[in-house]
Amino acid sequence: MRIVALAGGIGGARFLRGLQHADPKADITVVGNTGDDISLFGLRICPDLDTVMYTLGGGINEEQGWGRAEETFTLRDELAAYEVGPSWFTLGDRDFATHIVRTQMLEAGYPLSAVTEALCDRWRPGVRLLPMSDDRVETHVVIEDDEGRRAVHFQEWWVRLHAAVPARSIAAVGAEDAKPAPGVLEAIEAADVVILPPSNPVVSVGTILSVPGIRSAVAAKTVVGVSPIIGGAPVRGMADACLTAIGVRTSAGAVAEHYGADLLDGWLVDTADAALAGDLGGITVRARPLLMTDVEATGEIARAAIDLASELRA
Amino acid sequence: MRIVALAGGIGGARFLRGLQHADPKADITVVGNTGDDISLFGLRICPDLDTVMYTLGGGINEEQGWGRAEETFTLRDELAAYEVGPSWFTLGDRDFATHIVRTQMLEAGYPLSAVTEALCDRWRPGVRLLPMSDDRVETHVVIEDDEGRRAVHFQEWWVRLHAAVPARSIAAVGAEDAKPAPGVLEAIEAADVVILPPSNPVVSVGTILSVPGIRSAVAAKTVVGVSPIIGGAPVRGMADACLTAIGVRTSAGAVAEHYGADLLDGWLVDTADAALAGDLGGITVRARPLLMTDVEATGEIARAAIDLASELRA
Repeated sequence: MRIVALAGGIGGARFLRGLQHADPKADITVVGNTGDDISLFGLRICPDLDTVMYTLGGGINEEQGWGRAEETFTLRDELAAYEVGPSWFTLGDRDFATHIVRTQMLEAGYPLSAVTEALCDRWRPGVRLLPMSDDRVETHVVIEDDEGRRAVHFQEWWVRLHAAVPARSIAAVGAEDAKPAPGVLEAIEAADVVILPPSNPVVSVGTILSVPGIRSAVAAKTVVGVSPIIGGAPVRGMADACLTAIGVRTSAGAVAEHYGADLLDGWLVDTADAALAGDLGGITVRARPLLMTDVEATGEIARAAIDLASELRA
Repeated sequence: MRIVALAGGIGGARFLRGLQHADPKADITVVGNTGDDISLFGLRICPDLDTVMYTLGGGINEEQGWGRAEETFTLRDELAAYEVGPSWFTLGDRDFATHIVRTQMLEAGYPLSAVTEALCDRWRPGVRLLPMSDDRVETHVVIEDDEGRRAVHFQEWWVRLHAAVPARSIAAVGAEDAKPAPGVLEAIEAADVVILPPSNPVVSVGTILSVPGIRSAVAAKTVVGVSPIIGGAPVRGMADACLTAIGVRTSAGAVAEHYGADLLDGWLVDTADAALAGDLGGITVRARPLLMTDVEATGEIARAAIDLASELRA
C-alpha cells in the first residue's frame, strides 16, 4: 500500500511509528512541515523534520518527544558563556551536529530535500521523508502584549512565550510563492491513501496544505484524518491556541469542518467524541480510542485509519 | 612598557603567558597569525588566535597546548556518524561553540578583528589580541607524494600528514593583497619593543610579516626575537620541515639571518647555541636557557628579552 502522510512534529512522528507498526510493508512517504524551521546561531534548524527522523530512526528522546536521546548540553552552556543567544530554544550537542551538517549542505547549494535525504542516510527512518518545500516558508504569529503588537517567529511564540500570549493571526510567510519539494506531488498522486496524523491542524498540516498545489493534489485522493482534539482539548501541545487564532473551535468536529469535505473523506475521532460518528457533511466519521499510549495502541489507530481509507476507496 | 608580540599558536601563547608574568603591568598587543585558519563543517576556525585566547584566558588544555580543557567530543562522533568529514582535524564540543559564534558574527558582516574582540570579552586574556589581517590569508603547501604534486591547506599538511611529506614550497595565499587589521600598524608604531616569540618563523611569524606594511613597521622598532630552534632542532612542532621548504637551515643562527638584521636587533638563543653569542652581522645575540618548562622559567626568558630590548634601545 502506498501511503502519504502530512506530518508535523511530535504527534505526527509518534503516529508514523504506529503506521509502520500497523503495516510494516507499506510504502510510506512523509511530507514534513517546514514552517517551524528557524535559523539560530547561524544554523538552519528543522524541528519537525528532525523529530520525524529521530523518532523513526531510533534517536529520539522518548520522554520529551523531541531532541536526541542521551543528549548533553556543552555547547548550550558555552554559547551562554559567550552571552550569545537565544537561550530559550534548547539545542543539545548531538542535535547541533545535525544542524551543522544541514547548514553546511544548504550553503553548498543543496536544496533542503537533498539535505534531508542525506541526513536520512544515517537515520534510515523506513519512510521517504520529504520537506513540503525547498523554498523558505516561515510561520509568523502576530501577538499583542505589554511590548505592543508585533509579528514573531512561530518558535518564539510557541517555545519562548509558551503560546500564552494570544495570537491575533498566524501566517505562513513565503508559502504563496513556495513550490512543493521534488517528489511531493508525485508521491501524493501515486498514493493509495493520504493520511493526516493528529498533528497541529493549523501550523503543521495547515502549513503543508498552504503550499500551492499540495491541497488540490491531496483533495483528489482518499484522505483520512486522525483528530488531534479529544473531548474539546488537544491531546498534547497547544493546538487550541492556534485554532482560536484562526477562528476555529477546539473540537474534533470543528477541525474536520475546517479541513473541509472537499479535502477529507474519513475522520477518526476519540470515543469521547463518539456523538460525531456517522456522516459529517460528507465526511465519514468513526469513533475509537485515539490516545497514542504506546506503539501497539498507536498501531491500532493507524490500522483503523488505513481500514477506513480502504473502505472509502471501495 | 608597550609591547607588541607577533604570535603563532602553542609556543607563542606559552611565551606570552611568561611575558605577562615577567611584566604584569606591560601593555601588550598580540598580532596573531591567521594563515592557519581553515573552514571546516561550514565554520571558520582560527587555531592560533584561539590558542592564544584560551591559553591567556585560562581555558586551554594544558597538556596538549591547544583546544579546551575538560573537553568532550560528542559533535565529532555525531559528525562521523553522518560520515561528514574531515575526521583528521579534532574539534571538541567546547571549542565548537567558539567557531559557531565566530562564524555567525562573520556572516553577519563583522570583520575578524571585531569578532576576536567579542570572543575576548569572555576570555579576558589580559592582552589586546588582533588578527594580523581581516582579509583572508591561507597558507598553502605544495607537496608531492604517491598522489602526485599538489597544493594542500597548511592544516592538511601539518595535521593530517604530520608534515611527514616534504613541502616543495609554502605560500601565504592572499597575503599580497591583505591589509593589516585595524590597530595593527598603530600598535607597532606605538610600541617600545616588538618581540618575536619562539613561534614558527615560517608559517607563523613569517606569515604575519608577509602582510604588506607589517614588516617595515616592525623593522622600524627595537625588535628582539626568541629562537624556536635549540641545538639544531625545533623546541616543539615541526618548524624544521617548514625551514627546509624555504631553504633555511634548522639552526638558531640561520633563523636569525633569515629574519635579517634589518628586522632583528636582538636574538635570544639557548645555551646549547652559546657559540652564537655576540654580534651576528648586526644582530646582538645572547645565550640563556630557553626551555619554557613552566611559567616561572618562561617569565625569565621573557624578562631577558625585555631587558635586551631595553639595552638595545638605550
